[in-house]
Amino acid sequence: MSDIPRHPSVLVISAHSGDFVWRAGGAIALSARRGSSVHVLCLSYGERGESQGLWKQEGMTVERVKEARRAEASAAAEVLGASIEFLDLGDYPLRVGEDAVDRIVGVMRERQPDILLTHVANDPYNRDHNQAHETTLLTRMVAQAHGHDRSTRPLGAAQVFQFEPHQPEVCGFAPDLLLDISPVFDVKAEAMNRMTAQEHLVRYYTDLGLRRGVQAVRNGAPKTVTHAEAYQRTFPTVGDELR
Amino acid sequence: MSDIPRHPSVLVISAHSGDFVWRAGGAIALSARRGSSVHVLCLSYGERGESQGLWKQEGMTVERVKEARRAEASAAAEVLGASIEFLDLGDYPLRVGEDAVDRIVGVMRERQPDILLTHVANDPYNRDHNQAHETTLLTRMVAQAHGHDRSTRPLGAAQVFQFEPHQPEVCGFAPDLLLDISPVFDVKAEAMNRMTAQEHLVRYYTDLGLRRGVQAVRNGAPKTVTHAEAYQRTFPTVGDELR
Amino acid sequence: MSDIPRHPSVLVISAHSGDFVWRAGGAIALSARRGSSVHVLCLSYGERGESQGLWKQEGMTVERVKEARRAEASAAAEVLGASIEFLDLGDYPLRVGEDAVDRIVGVMRERQPDILLTHVANDPYNRDHNQAHETTLLTRMVAQAHGHDRSTRPLGAAQVFQFEPHQPEVCGFAPDLLLDISPVFDVKAEAMNRMTAQEHLVRYYTDLGLRRGVQAVRNGAPKTVTHAEAYQRTFPTVGDELR
Amino acid sequence: MSDIPRHPSVLVISAHSGDFVWRAGGAIALSARRGSSVHVLCLSYGERGESQGLWKQEGMTVERVKEARRAEASAAAEVLGASIEFLDLGDYPLRVGEDAVDRIVGVMRERQPDILLTHVANDPYNRDHNQAHETTLLTRMVAQAHGHDRSTRPLGAAQVFQFEPHQPEVCGFAPDLLLDISPVFDVKAEAMNRMTAQEHLVRYYTDLGLRRGVQAVRNGAPKTVTHAEAYQRTFPTVGDELR
Amino acid sequence: MSDIPRHPSVLVISAHSGDFVWRAGGAIALSARRGSSVHVLCLSYGERGESQGLWKQEGMTVERVKEARRAEASAAAEVLGASIEFLDLGDYPLRVGEDAVDRIVGVMRERQPDILLTHVANDPYNRDHNQAHETTLLTRMVAQAHGHDRSTRPLGAAQVFQFEPHQPEVCGFAPDLLLDISPVFDVKAEAMNRMTAQEHLVRYYTDLGLRRGVQAVRNGAPKTVTHAEAYQRTFPTVGDELR
Amino acid sequence: MSDIPRHPSVLVISAHSGDFVWRAGGAIALSARRGSSVHVLCLSYGERGESQGLWKQEGMTVERVKEARRAEASAAAEVLGASIEFLDLGDYPLRVGEDAVDRIVGVMRERQPDILLTHVANDPYNRDHNQAHETTLLTRMVAQAHGHDRSTRPLGAAQVFQFEPHQPEVCGFAPDLLLDISPVFDVKAEAMNRMTAQEHLVRYYTDLGLRRGVQAVRNGAPKTVTHAEAYQRTFPTVGDELR
Repeated sequence: MSDIPRHPSVLVISAHSGDFVWRAGGAIALSARRGSSVHVLCLSYGERGESQGLWKQEGMTVERVKEARRAEASAAAEVLGASIEFLDLGDYPLRVGEDAVDRIVGVMRERQPDILLTHVANDPYNRDHNQAHETTLLTRMVAQAHGHDRSTRPLGAAQVFQFEPHQPEVCGFAPDLLLDISPVFDVKAEAMNRMTAQEHLVRYYTDLGLRRGVQAVRNGAPKTVTHAEAYQRTFPTVGDELR
Repeated sequence: MSDIPRHPSVLVISAHSGDFVWRAGGAIALSARRGSSVHVLCLSYGERGESQGLWKQEGMTVERVKEARRAEASAAAEVLGASIEFLDLGDYPLRVGEDAVDRIVGVMRERQPDILLTHVANDPYNRDHNQAHETTLLTRMVAQAHGHDRSTRPLGAAQVFQFEPHQPEVCGFAPDLLLDISPVFDVKAEAMNRMTAQEHLVRYYTDLGLRRGVQAVRNGAPKTVTHAEAYQRTFPTVGDELR
Repeated sequence: MSDIPRHPSVLVISAHSGDFVWRAGGAIALSARRGSSVHVLCLSYGERGESQGLWKQEGMTVERVKEARRAEASAAAEVLGASIEFLDLGDYPLRVGEDAVDRIVGVMRERQPDILLTHVANDPYNRDHNQAHETTLLTRMVAQAHGHDRSTRPLGAAQVFQFEPHQPEVCGFAPDLLLDISPVFDVKAEAMNRMTAQEHLVRYYTDLGLRRGVQAVRNGAPKTVTHAEAYQRTFPTVGDELR
Repeated sequence: MSDIPRHPSVLVISAHSGDFVWRAGGAIALSARRGSSVHVLCLSYGERGESQGLWKQEGMTVERVKEARRAEASAAAEVLGASIEFLDLGDYPLRVGEDAVDRIVGVMRERQPDILLTHVANDPYNRDHNQAHETTLLTRMVAQAHGHDRSTRPLGAAQVFQFEPHQPEVCGFAPDLLLDISPVFDVKAEAMNRMTAQEHLVRYYTDLGLRRGVQAVRNGAPKTVTHAEAYQRTFPTVGDELR
Repeated sequence: MSDIPRHPSVLVISAHSGDFVWRAGGAIALSARRGSSVHVLCLSYGERGESQGLWKQEGMTVERVKEARRAEASAAAEVLGASIEFLDLGDYPLRVGEDAVDRIVGVMRERQPDILLTHVANDPYNRDHNQAHETTLLTRMVAQAHGHDRSTRPLGAAQVFQFEPHQPEVCGFAPDLLLDISPVFDVKAEAMNRMTAQEHLVRYYTDLGLRRGVQAVRNGAPKTVTHAEAYQRTFPTVGDELR
Repeated sequence: MSDIPRHPSVLVISAHSGDFVWRAGGAIALSARRGSSVHVLCLSYGERGESQGLWKQEGMTVERVKEARRAEASAAAEVLGASIEFLDLGDYPLRVGEDAVDRIVGVMRERQPDILLTHVANDPYNRDHNQAHETTLLTRMVAQAHGHDRSTRPLGAAQVFQFEPHQPEVCGFAPDLLLDISPVFDVKAEAMNRMTAQEHLVRYYTDLGLRRGVQAVRNGAPKTVTHAEAYQRTFPTVGDELR
């Protein structure tokens, strides 16, 4: 619509430092390439629960895992064209205290994202994902409040896109956007290759991208679409045409 | 996306001859004004169940009600910029036999709509609405079949937008598009004024338009938006940007 | 509310000739005792699918089963204080053609029920029950149409209460009324005892009545409540107090 | 039913100090006028998130906002006929600690409400509303425990009515009571007029009252009903008649 | 449990003549290899809607398509170890009349399946699939009726497994069984290769098998599991152990 | 499947010290009798909310209630063949802090349960039950993390069975396993008789066992099944046969 910015600003709230690459790398690369600012907030490094590869190395410690995860995620974000920061709130379980809420609200106020990307509301396998979802809705609300920190500007009505969980049906995931990421799939692939701690996922998410691409075509996308990512919107869209 | 036509063709499948005006008049006017072809299929005239005003007139007969309804709906369609046809399948209850299915498929094949508009799947107050929904999904499927009537071209993956029922929550209506109809609301108003058999609805749908407009703004539309219509998509959207 | 009739008229639409006794016998007896007119429409006799006891008798025929079922159901209805009629539409599967629709609409127009009782929308074990539900909503809609049969009076906004299916959770049954049937449970018991073809159900529904009674108390009914029946409303209630 | 008190006591648990007026003012006025005791617990003043009008005034501080909000809400409660207290737990986000839980339980034990009014379970726009819902169910449970504070009397099986959220379908709101507030709508209007910090809502909730009134009639209320409020029950009702 | 047969008999009700291969080929091969009788009922050939490859050949006619589809499906069934029959009820749309119902009931009575396999209840892309689902539940009910055709034996409480639709989330598919088909995946692959009219699906369903295999392991299957098929049960399982 | 252990280890996470007996006593006895290790974690004694009988005794104190509850639950566990421990986290409300999470994770790591039993996700009557559900999913996730406490072994993909709440439909409980407990019902009955604080429940759960037994037969269990317990699985099952 007329006042949707040409380059909508994107903020990704990722439970663990790898999630944003696998689940939303295409959306991030696409937005960045078009001139949008994209920022990634990693609530934790996923140091305990999502670093199986690193833990197999001898003499591994939590600190060294975090360092390795930070390096990987930073490299991947750079490839995708996004800035990144790490809140180091711990994982398995992820705990988001009042300080963390304030900090995330601060980021929202400063960056004024038009779009938020995060996890689904109910993943029975992974409660850290739920925590990231809840945190996103909570901080969005606080960031919108006119009476919160009068020195900064309230956030607008940012849409919240939920990215695809590992086992969608068990999580009640009902995608309503199949995003064409064909033009940037090579970028996503390169970013995924930086994630050495979870190498086995590269092939998995490549296949998923192809499959969602096929579905996009089946739902009306041009036949030239090869890869897609699936998203579920939290709020209705607004528009001035039927689409 | 690149191959979404500049002027997507629209087909409206309306259970009764008034439904398309109240529930989708804004979408129709908007599409027509932008150069799209919009065609309305009225499955019935709503002669028995939705012509209370007419039946209050002395000496009214079913045939005269149908005639009046046809005249009104034709006038409203003209105002909105749409062509219209009437299948006269009867109402309360609406029955869609095999002939009617063939005819609707024929229309879909000929007109190649990019977009279908119809009712919700489950309205406990009005089973004719459900019947229109089911008919739309059924005929869409038949029209897509490569082996159906080899002399005509199969339909593509048309999106099905469900328009707002009278009591949305009781019908499980979950709108995911708030369509800005501000620039054409005067046209919709004029079309509504042609529906003399259901005058009391004009004010109702004017208020609804305003209310959905407020919600559109609350969900991120420009503050200049004043009127909107709510829709629920049946299939995921496809796109090359997050929106 | 002020214009709710003192003695609301009740129409029960029962897929098979036994259903109304087991599932709604308490509600029927209660209404009848208070002076309401209660009428039961049995769409079929349940002659094939719900007459196991009768079929075990030697030399049984469909006609004799129907006769026995009719006699039992008539006796039960009399005990409960209701009138009854049988449409004999066949069971397993129950088929409701256009003639049957007309006849049911005729009954609704004549009797002007304030309350309709029928089955749930989705019972995977028994599609005849679904058929009865759909028929109820369809005929209610037709009976309300101002243009239907101008010689009879349109039906008002009758509430549709769904009675409890055999395996509630599998049918998605979500009761929102626990009806105290304590004062008439002896009447329901007597009516159940007339159903000799399905004797094993007497104990089952006696226990169910007790159990729902306990739940009623747990949800705030007086401690003197001993038996209840569970219902799910199809439409919102209207009222002038919070209850 | 026989032991439902003539004047059921009502406790409203309002996330912010304005919510009870807009969303439940009719129910409150109705109960009060009939002789019920109605008490409102405001968990917060809504000082940060719901006082936009006040924050536009120069030199505004949080303390002054709270004061103004307290004055307005107290005036509105007085108009409606309810007593009111403020827990000042903060908003955006609302945090309900153990002390607050104890205090709310204390109020429930003392006042013995028959009816609780609060927000819906899942409002993606406003997590404070969810928090109020969760708090209501949690404190209700504690207040019912026989082993909690033996010096006070356990709470009974109070029904929890959820009032209407701003965007009902997005919140999964399924109203099952349309409450006739026609006789007290002037009182609600007067109470709404005391809420100067959110003036723009007066017209909105007036229109909503009219619209829900129309639906009430459509669902069977007398034609004289002009205004209604929508509610969703949390627990089944119990009754001794079908209604 | 003790009276579950060692070799449960399986009946597959397939809307189109290819569905059973893609969606349930593994389950069929597995059952057949273990000594179960497996029978496939193809309601239609999918001659219009699912034979795109054939229609591209010059001079193709409906009769030749059906013949080719029959040959392919028969060959695939033979590879899988199942018998097959074709009801030729037409597709896009599939219409199941009373005769067809009788015939399917007859097959159920004769074969006494312990297990039924069919489509999901609600696929917005393909109403033929819904029709097959509804037909399965309807005929199962009729086949169970004691008073139906006294010369044949009533069917028992056969479980109905729904197989995976093409776009599971859009169809509300919630799999609750991930079936290990690793030992027979080569057989399924061979059967799929007989389906020359829909060649492009072979790779698709091979990938899907791998993906569901990974999920099976993630949900507790042995690491040796490589391929799986997903199913949703319609009724609760019964068992004498927690599994 | 091949690596499902012959005697799967079971861990029960019970909100209050009685829940495991009433809701899962049959499953526990069955597993124990077959040689499985079964361990019960009571998060609280249910001292405030579920010890009505004890509080009626004169001079009762919280400490004495806890002692009595501990004695009863220990006796019942012994009868059932399970070991038991008590975390004494308080009830009404139950609060599970970080220490408790660590302790439960420790138990999971040590015992390596194949099966977890706990409450449903959403019980509006009893938020302690929800808390136990959430705690189970959270600690399961932590116990699976490779980077958590490198000295102990990660947990596998334990299934989580939810046992039946008091008012199943109001809690959205959809049972998908009816477990035959006929061979151990006498054991469960004996265990129930040890729960003197909640005597009135013995009859209730005996009846429920019978009723669920009838449903098991109706869903295909052998006619010899007399008692069952209902469960809802949280994750899909994996298997190598359709069952």
